Amino acid sequence: MPNKRLTTTSQPRTSATFTKRTLAAFATVAALGLPTLAMAEETVIGVSIPAATHGWTGGVNYHAEQAKKRLEALYPDISITISTAGGPSEQANDLEDLVSLRGIDALVVLPFESGPLTGPVRRVKESGAFVTVVDRGLEQEGIEDLYVAGNNQEMGRVSGQYIRQKLDGQGDIVVLRGIPTVIDDERVQGFQEALEGSDINILDMQYANWNRDDGFEVMQDFLTRFDNIDAVWAQDDDTALGVIAAVRQAEREDEMFIIGGAGMKGIIKRVMEGDELVPADVLYPPAMIATAMDLTVQNFVSNGPVVGEYILGSPLITPENAEQYYFPDSPY
Amino acid sequence: MPNKRLTTTSQPRTSATFTKRTLAAFATVAALGLPTLAMAEETVIGVSIPAATHGWTGGVNYHAEQAKKRLEALYPDISITISTAGGPSEQANDLEDLVSLRGIDALVVLPFESGPLTGPVRRVKESGAFVTVVDRGLEQEGIEDLYVAGNNQEMGRVSGQYIRQKLDGQGDIVVLRGIPTVIDDERVQGFQEALEGSDINILDMQYANWNRDDGFEVMQDFLTRFDNIDAVWAQDDDTALGVIAAVRQAEREDEMFIIGGAGMKGIIKRVMEGDELVPADVLYPPAMIATAMDLTVQNFVSNGPVVGEYILGSPLITPENAEQYYFPDSPY
Repeated sequence: MPNKRLTTTSQPRTSATFTKRTLAAFATVAALGLPTLAMAEETVIGVSIPAATHGWTGGVNYHAEQAKKRLEALYPDISITISTAGGPSEQANDLEDLVSLRGIDALVVLPFESGPLTGPVRRVKESGAFVTVVDRGLEQEGIEDLYVAGNNQEMGRVSGQYIRQKLDGQGDIVVLRGIPTVIDDERVQGFQEALEGSDINILDMQYANWNRDDGFEVMQDFLTRFDNIDAVWAQDDDTALGVIAAVRQAEREDEMFIIGGAGMKGIIKRVMEGDELVPADVLYPPAMIATAMDLTVQNFVSNGPVVGEYILGSPLITPENAEQYYFPDSPY
Repeated sequence: MPNKRLTTTSQPRTSATFTKRTLAAFATVAALGLPTLAMAEETVIGVSIPAATHGWTGGVNYHAEQAKKRLEALYPDISITISTAGGPSEQANDLEDLVSLRGIDALVVLPFESGPLTGPVRRVKESGAFVTVVDRGLEQEGIEDLYVAGNNQEMGRVSGQYIRQKLDGQGDIVVLRGIPTVIDDERVQGFQEALEGSDINILDMQYANWNRDDGFEVMQDFLTRFDNIDAVWAQDDDTALGVIAAVRQAEREDEMFIIGGAGMKGIIKRVMEGDELVPADVLYPPAMIATAMDLTVQNFVSNGPVVGEYILGSPLITPENAEQYYFPDSPY
């Protein structure tokens, strides 16, 4: 358990080492008559994330690596280990290894799935580590010390508000939903609330599974069925890529605009460049893994408390602020 | 507006200087033919808090100063200015000065009162600064970029759960409420929910205004009226000090235990030392100002997003973890 009291000195770079564990290590070493210098101990933080199997998790991997570099350069006594897993059972094994082999003081975990990871994360907590859960909650409350996640309801609401404003409150639109989940339900609910009382007519909503190919197919169908579409809410930037391709193929780019979501660099770049087909995006950032890592480190070096729930906002990305959200070196 | 993209290099210590403002400054300097080196610009963060007029705000001042020292040592390009105000109008003036005289890039504000500060904080936001609001929300939504606050409902619930467990689900208790506010209502609601279905009987609840003298008087009255009291929920550590004094004067220390709240060092010390009269405390930390300052700095140096809402938990403080929350140099 870190001793926050000792971190309030004016030497933050060294204070992180003087945890209770370090003091305990010194005591042990003194008892054994060993030299103490070699025992100065690091604070070890394990980060467990899904492998970069698709766009958004690719961004998660990139931002975790960036945060590791930045934080290790800033705090010489903090060591960060990143494990990537191809599935829930591999991730459960990773968690065991982080505890038994690396002796982590803290875990930052973006669970593959809530159910299969609840037990394994609880066991990490029981080992005495500080636990931060990112994006996908566990099935049991009260395990994690810190929860960091996006705001799906707001993500839908901000998207709806933008479309409503851009269309001056009237027009015909189509909606491509995600994978049928609570996340998708919350987003769609926020979106519909933002349109209430307007003259915007949702022609149809179909699931496109946050997927490019499905986005293409669903949009092709919409384009066949509807003669006039003023705007498309694709909810996701991968889906938006498929929608863009379908609209281009149909040569109907001038008729409508498309709003995706998340913050993929290709989409952000279009927004930055003033592309009229993609005039804005709404953030649901894979970089939230970096926010979670920052705060987990703060638990060991700051006088400010960290335990709690941090729900990140979904700001609208427009040409005016797009550069702030553009990471050209990220795969996403 | 900070340019987050440029902060993703592997040199976080220098990247913070290369904001768009800096680039603009270089351009101006070049046009004027002045030497550029002297113009390397800092990121300036203004912190506006109430003066240390009572215990909790004393803690806020202490922790803001500690965070300033730590963050300025860690980031040479960040400069932090702390303004303390004796009342709402003085704080409004402070905010104007931070913008016009210091040209702040970001504001961290713990508003004296919500109403009178809403307009002044909005004007800071309109100047282009990043705005973090702490503890007390503004009267208008959507002004701040980041909101950091405690969780009053949880604070009451954790207190109630502890008392329920310690009394094995039955007994007679008294409650000293705070100042009649939403904060007090939320805490009492959480407390009562935690007792639902138990055989714990609340003999009486009276307002003691989070104040030591009122705590003493209200508790004297309770002691006169009730022959048996198993536990006291004082909700606040200042109130708890008054309650302790009254119980001692009546020589009834062995009959009951007292739960305050916030994390005053004198109370934490008692918990740490295993005082049976004060076996635990519940955190509502003035150090949340440091958390807010940490995150506001992250907005300029991290690849992780910061905009959102951060609700800090109210962990139970027991002899096992009390040292972590004990700041002997703090006035609170």
